Amino acid sequence: MAKFVYLFSEGDETMRELLGGKGANLAGMTKLGLPIPQGFTVSTEACTQYYTDGEKINDSIQAEIMQYVVKMEEITGKKFGDNENPLLVSVRSGSRASMPGMMDTVLNLGLNDQVVEVIANKSGNPRWAYDCYRRFIQMYSDVVMEVGKKYFEELIDEMKEKKGVALDTELSADDLKELANQFKAEYKAKLGADFPTDPKEQLMGAIKAVFRSWNNERAIYYRRMHNIPGSWGTAVNVQAMVFGNLGDTSGTGVAFTRDPATGEKVLMGEYLINAQGEDVVAGIRTPNTIDQLKNDLPEAYNEFVAICNKLENHYKDMQDMEFTIEDRKLYMLQTRSGKRTAAASLKIAVDLVKEGMVDEKTAISKLLDPSQLDALLHPQFDAAALKAAKVIGKGLAASPGAACGMVALTAEKAAEWGKAGKAVILTRLETSPEDIEGMDFSKGILTARGGKTSHAAVVARAMGKCCVSGCGEIKFKGDDSFELGGNTYKEGDFISLDGSTGNIYDGTIDTVDAEITGDFDTVMKWADQFRTLKVRTNADTPKDAKKAVEFGAEGIGLTRTEHMFFEGDRIAAIREMICAETVEQREKALAKLEPMQQKDFEEIYEALGGKPVTIRFLDPPLHEFIPQDEAGLAQLSKDTGKSREKIDEIITSLHEFNPMMGHRGCRLAVTYPEIAAMQTRAVIKAAIAVNKKGMNVVPEIMIPLISEKKELDYVKSVVVETADKLIAESGASLKYMVGTMIEIPRAALTADEVAQSAEFFSFGTNDLTQMTFGFSRDDAGNFLDDYYGKNIYEFDPFARIDINGVGKLMELAVKLGKQTRPDIKLGICGEHGGDPFTVMFCHKIGLDYVSCSPFRVPIARLAAAQAALSGGEFAAKG
Amino acid sequence: MAKFVYLFSEGDETMRELLGGKGANLAGMTKLGLPIPQGFTVSTEACTQYYTDGEKINDSIQAEIMQYVVKMEEITGKKFGDNENPLLVSVRSGSRASMPGMMDTVLNLGLNDQVVEVIANKSGNPRWAYDCYRRFIQMYSDVVMEVGKKYFEELIDEMKEKKGVALDTELSADDLKELANQFKAEYKAKLGADFPTDPKEQLMGAIKAVFRSWNNERAIYYRRMHNIPGSWGTAVNVQAMVFGNLGDTSGTGVAFTRDPATGEKVLMGEYLINAQGEDVVAGIRTPNTIDQLKNDLPEAYNEFVAICNKLENHYKDMQDMEFTIEDRKLYMLQTRSGKRTAAASLKIAVDLVKEGMVDEKTAISKLLDPSQLDALLHPQFDAAALKAAKVIGKGLAASPGAACGMVALTAEKAAEWGKAGKAVILTRLETSPEDIEGMDFSKGILTARGGKTSHAAVVARAMGKCCVSGCGEIKFKGDDSFELGGNTYKEGDFISLDGSTGNIYDGTIDTVDAEITGDFDTVMKWADQFRTLKVRTNADTPKDAKKAVEFGAEGIGLTRTEHMFFEGDRIAAIREMICAETVEQREKALAKLEPMQQKDFEEIYEALGGKPVTIRFLDPPLHEFIPQDEAGLAQLSKDTGKSREKIDEIITSLHEFNPMMGHRGCRLAVTYPEIAAMQTRAVIKAAIAVNKKGMNVVPEIMIPLISEKKELDYVKSVVVETADKLIAESGASLKYMVGTMIEIPRAALTADEVAQSAEFFSFGTNDLTQMTFGFSRDDAGNFLDDYYGKNIYEFDPFARIDINGVGKLMELAVKLGKQTRPDIKLGICGEHGGDPFTVMFCHKIGLDYVSCSPFRVPIARLAAAQAALSGGEFAAKG
Repeated sequence: MAKFVYLFSEGDETMRELLGGKGANLAGMTKLGLPIPQGFTVSTEACTQYYTDGEKINDSIQAEIMQYVVKMEEITGKKFGDNENPLLVSVRSGSRASMPGMMDTVLNLGLNDQVVEVIANKSGNPRWAYDCYRRFIQMYSDVVMEVGKKYFEELIDEMKEKKGVALDTELSADDLKELANQFKAEYKAKLGADFPTDPKEQLMGAIKAVFRSWNNERAIYYRRMHNIPGSWGTAVNVQAMVFGNLGDTSGTGVAFTRDPATGEKVLMGEYLINAQGEDVVAGIRTPNTIDQLKNDLPEAYNEFVAICNKLENHYKDMQDMEFTIEDRKLYMLQTRSGKRTAAASLKIAVDLVKEGMVDEKTAISKLLDPSQLDALLHPQFDAAALKAAKVIGKGLAASPGAACGMVALTAEKAAEWGKAGKAVILTRLETSPEDIEGMDFSKGILTARGGKTSHAAVVARAMGKCCVSGCGEIKFKGDDSFELGGNTYKEGDFISLDGSTGNIYDGTIDTVDAEITGDFDTVMKWADQFRTLKVRTNADTPKDAKKAVEFGAEGIGLTRTEHMFFEGDRIAAIREMICAETVEQREKALAKLEPMQQKDFEEIYEALGGKPVTIRFLDPPLHEFIPQDEAGLAQLSKDTGKSREKIDEIITSLHEFNPMMGHRGCRLAVTYPEIAAMQTRAVIKAAIAVNKKGMNVVPEIMIPLISEKKELDYVKSVVVETADKLIAESGASLKYMVGTMIEIPRAALTADEVAQSAEFFSFGTNDLTQMTFGFSRDDAGNFLDDYYGKNIYEFDPFARIDINGVGKLMELAVKLGKQTRPDIKLGICGEHGGDPFTVMFCHKIGLDYVSCSPFRVPIARLAAAQAALSGGEFAAKG
Repeated sequence: MAKFVYLFSEGDETMRELLGGKGANLAGMTKLGLPIPQGFTVSTEACTQYYTDGEKINDSIQAEIMQYVVKMEEITGKKFGDNENPLLVSVRSGSRASMPGMMDTVLNLGLNDQVVEVIANKSGNPRWAYDCYRRFIQMYSDVVMEVGKKYFEELIDEMKEKKGVALDTELSADDLKELANQFKAEYKAKLGADFPTDPKEQLMGAIKAVFRSWNNERAIYYRRMHNIPGSWGTAVNVQAMVFGNLGDTSGTGVAFTRDPATGEKVLMGEYLINAQGEDVVAGIRTPNTIDQLKNDLPEAYNEFVAICNKLENHYKDMQDMEFTIEDRKLYMLQTRSGKRTAAASLKIAVDLVKEGMVDEKTAISKLLDPSQLDALLHPQFDAAALKAAKVIGKGLAASPGAACGMVALTAEKAAEWGKAGKAVILTRLETSPEDIEGMDFSKGILTARGGKTSHAAVVARAMGKCCVSGCGEIKFKGDDSFELGGNTYKEGDFISLDGSTGNIYDGTIDTVDAEITGDFDTVMKWADQFRTLKVRTNADTPKDAKKAVEFGAEGIGLTRTEHMFFEGDRIAAIREMICAETVEQREKALAKLEPMQQKDFEEIYEALGGKPVTIRFLDPPLHEFIPQDEAGLAQLSKDTGKSREKIDEIITSLHEFNPMMGHRGCRLAVTYPEIAAMQTRAVIKAAIAVNKKGMNVVPEIMIPLISEKKELDYVKSVVVETADKLIAESGASLKYMVGTMIEIPRAALTADEVAQSAEFFSFGTNDLTQMTFGFSRDDAGNFLDDYYGKNIYEFDPFARIDINGVGKLMELAVKLGKQTRPDIKLGICGEHGGDPFTVMFCHKIGLDYVSCSPFRVPIARLAAAQAALSGGEFAAKG
């Protein structure tokens, strides 16, 4: 028969999957001989079974739990509901990954009207006994029966008022007894039944409540943020109570073996005398710092310090511990790897290696979370200055970083001021591709509409620029101002954005810049030794490319040529091209673009210094380039010599019902092969030019949106014909590659055929995710929250790869592609490429590289190292 | 070594794949001992090799052809370029499937200035010799060198004018000799080279030209229409020439063993005395009917009649033959199964079975083309009346059938007049879902915009209603009239539409109605004996459902509940629901809809008489239901008590960038579970109500647009909870099923998981095709023509299933679905369900049923029978 329950003494710290982090460490500490109140763990498998059984604990598991209650009674010498020596227990959650504060806990379980008298008499401390009792009723009602804390808190407040006291501790035993009675009455009033008196019934209710809390809203949200699968479930730890609220020789506290903010090697912690665990967190009284314990209870303090050292040496990581002192005797209630800031995380890893406690491999694979690095890569507000700043609103934390600047309400104004060296915050209802230049010259972007995957957000992240999106509170007033947080901001007024929190501040705040130095640099060098996956970057400008190389990029995996089209004269030429009605007109407009594109490519090749560069040919639907305003349309009419009516007619003909699934990508090159020919000339001529200067560029031409081999064949034939002619004419011996993005399901499904023509695949997982799920990023915001709320999706499929669906297509494409062309080069250039979970997956399925925005390159380097060290198996960090 | 060339005497009629239809039948007729000018066939594999080699006939195949020239010279006793007995040959295409007139032919090959003299002298008929020569130069220049016929025709016209004659036959030997010289000069002027004199060079050029013609535009188009893969290639037949233009005892003709228009058993044919093959087709002179040959050349006639009977008996099908009589001697040049009308096809099949020539199985599998039946299922114009009618314009043949009626320019007017019993042609710029009622009350639909997959086209086909779409010539004038073909039509004026040709006529034309009787009925009954695939229908109204049952539907595979929402009061309630801002408001609006939906379902169940009914829950995005005009918006404001500003705000919030990939399908039910609950109540209550009357309905509830099992779980839980409660309350013992559409790639990829919750799958291949290819039907029209033109796609993936991509996903889903749930019910309800090719595929991958529009049910029945008889292997009909 399956075993679902384990005594602490039956387990050990390696059994994390089964017993959860807390359970495994309680077992581990028991093995180490530390002072642990004993008990048992109901396994994560019991939780899974609970959900399989339709949110019921089945009879066989209930029976097993009851057997372990008996064993626990034997070990502790106490019994549930006993008149001599009653057993009281805590019931706590504990999943494989630490999810602090997300799930539920019940303390002091086992109390009823009779037991409370027993412990009151036995301890000679009726105040304590009734304090425990009223706490238990309150917690059980809240956690297990969902009555809601506030009703009980109101009763406490009434009592304090009646008694004329300020603190809970000033209430007497009788007051607390009276409160316990009031609480029970409240329970009955709310639920129509008496408060349960049978400790076994209480226990089963509490265990069920912990299982249930695995799927509460905040737990679901936390899991989504930290890549923790809903299928893992939580274990439940039933542990004998020890009491920090027995008087002045008792207390409870929490501590870290190193400073979680800086990583400094110093014991950090807080405690309260005469209190139970939740009091420290709840902030009812101000706790003392841990070093004061040396004075209050020196023996307990010394023992605690010794245990801290022992635990850190044993677990080889900074520990976060809970303890209780019951009448001078120290008990350890929990230990776990402590949460820490990104900076602390790097310092601790480097220090632990220096101290010889771990080797570099272990530091990389166990001590660091790649996602956390993000916080270190963007300019940050100076912490002190931030405290003093005034929050005026909050939007979505769309792209991290900190930015201060003058409000500009149009992209033109932002570009104008930006070029003049001013710091600008571009503030728009929403942004469009037309705004690119303005965005590029802004320090930060603020929008009133749009989610984390809106145009503003995506482009800002790609640019490594701070962005707060979807701040609905902004009310635009006319053309030159908006209201927010009760203030009116005109163009030129200063505001500040925190892209990591979504906060918007009045005025400016001092910032500090990001660099990869010191511990960060050390850790990156270690990572590079271990990883096998290359890391490239998505960069559309020489500036971005340079930044990425600084951050360790080994090439460009995606240059979006169209992003170059919005600048200066180019947009005029592009628009002329779009309005062309004959091949000749189109070629004339393209001829204007060609030298500009060539120059772009030369600069990018030079920025990369010979590292590989993948250039994607024109991708977006042409209507994205059309002017949005009357002035632009009039100009276009003038530039092209076509009437305004004719221009309108052309624009109407470009309208699409579903632009995402319209005339874009290689479809443009099929209709207008002259565009692909022009882009080929620019790519090849630029390569010939820089190679003459001694470089050895091998351009990789990437055809987007392929769904069929013959489609690629057609476009490739245009590219090859154009390129080979130029190369022959030049007398140079340039090599180049032609490959494709795999971003349409059919391309993945027929990858064996596509690979006959493609020399490389790059997974365009943004579109691949859209097509595979059948929803567009731009529209999914309308319903995805319902999906998260109803636990249908656990993760944002646009942020981390959906292994079951999109991943299946990727694996298939890799298999089929290699089948046809064993040496096919495989990469990913969707936004997923910078997500650590996705990097793991890419390593596992055998890609050669990931490509991501410059600011995610270090994240990908670390994630790739972890992937190599773990063999691609993702484990959420404890 | 591979063999690419076969003498006629080496092959037989079963070698169609290798030798093409013409080659195989020439071999077959040779075996039968019929008088066949001998020669050889260059195989279809040589054609494939030609394309593999980059449109070159490689040296080894050229050498093989030359060996066969020698063999042919031995057999015929003639030699290329010989001074005594020169060999002249015809070079003709011949693919596996008959593609009449699509590819190229060269006659009289082998002539040059010297050879023409030899045959002139030898035959004593220089006129004939020079006629052959000028024909050859003309044909070779046109077909092989693509000079263009017209230059030569101009020269002939000049010559006739100069000579003052009307007919070619009136030109003398000298005139023709002069023309041949002029032709050669023209050739040199156009191509800068002399006309080739070496017969071997001529032959290789002609063979190459035939191979090339496999990919000419009309051949590509023909293949697309008839499901013929481009990979098949064509064979080339090189045959000794016989001459019908040797004088009055020579001639050439074509004949059918039965009447191809009616199927009547009577020899039908035409011939010309003193002519070559192309003269009959080209209509230069009016040919004689075949029975006159009895008088002209009685011996040849009698021999021909005997051969006709022999061939029909041998091939067991109506034959279409070409023959030539050279100086009284009959030669057969070709035989093949004759093309025929749908009605003829049925009569011939039934007659051949009656005559004992074939059995029913053979009749079903070999003699009938399911696609052809379409023509018989819609009302048709009376043929005589049609001849007299005046064409005023032409659009796309979007939905077959014939319709006459009064022009109505709004759906409201169409509905009003339709209800009053008037025949209406709804004429719109384009239609939208709002127009449904008006469309339903119209006889035909005409639009100025939109392709064959536009809203108008799709809905019209589903309704079995005639539709001509995308007639760009229509110019709307104000609100009440349009111009077309030089006339102005006001509302109330009569026009007629032919949905099978796209023609638009002035006034009315008599029509005849479709019925399944006589031969049609006989054939359908045979088909039903053989097929294993069930055939259901897509029907949204009791009327459509009844029609489908008449046509043999065995259930409903798709009822689109939303189509019911546009009628009468419903749209008001739906709009109120959309504008609801709370669950209560939404439920209030839904409560109004519920009894109407229930009544719809009762009527549909009753129309089906207990046959299974699959009901799809609300699918389209809500903005489709929003009024488009100010009056409608004002009414909505009044109905809901919300301000016009508020209404605008709601509409803005419903806007989507890519509605196809937006908030629709089950996503609506996730956000608004109360909609699914209402629809469940209507489905279940209706079933309980009709079952009380003695029926045994088991409703099949279909949840659309699933991409993830948990999504289905959520909606299913709402359905099951609602349904089970109602059933329990009613005391009845109703059964029902819950299943899903597989229309998103991810659903197919994770079908094993989805099948845990779905009791049936129905492939929604419209959306599945869109998502798999990554293009929307509404937008693909902008580029698909380029794709066909550049030979990237061979077929319209929205008309026949794309086996390589979409089909792969379907097969995967079937495999995964059955793995989880071996008895899962599998169907298809996309528009592909009525396409014979797709029906074959569905049979092959093991679906239980196909569902299609009522008017395609007989087509699907026949296709399903053919699939069962062939094991799902599709073969284009010869």
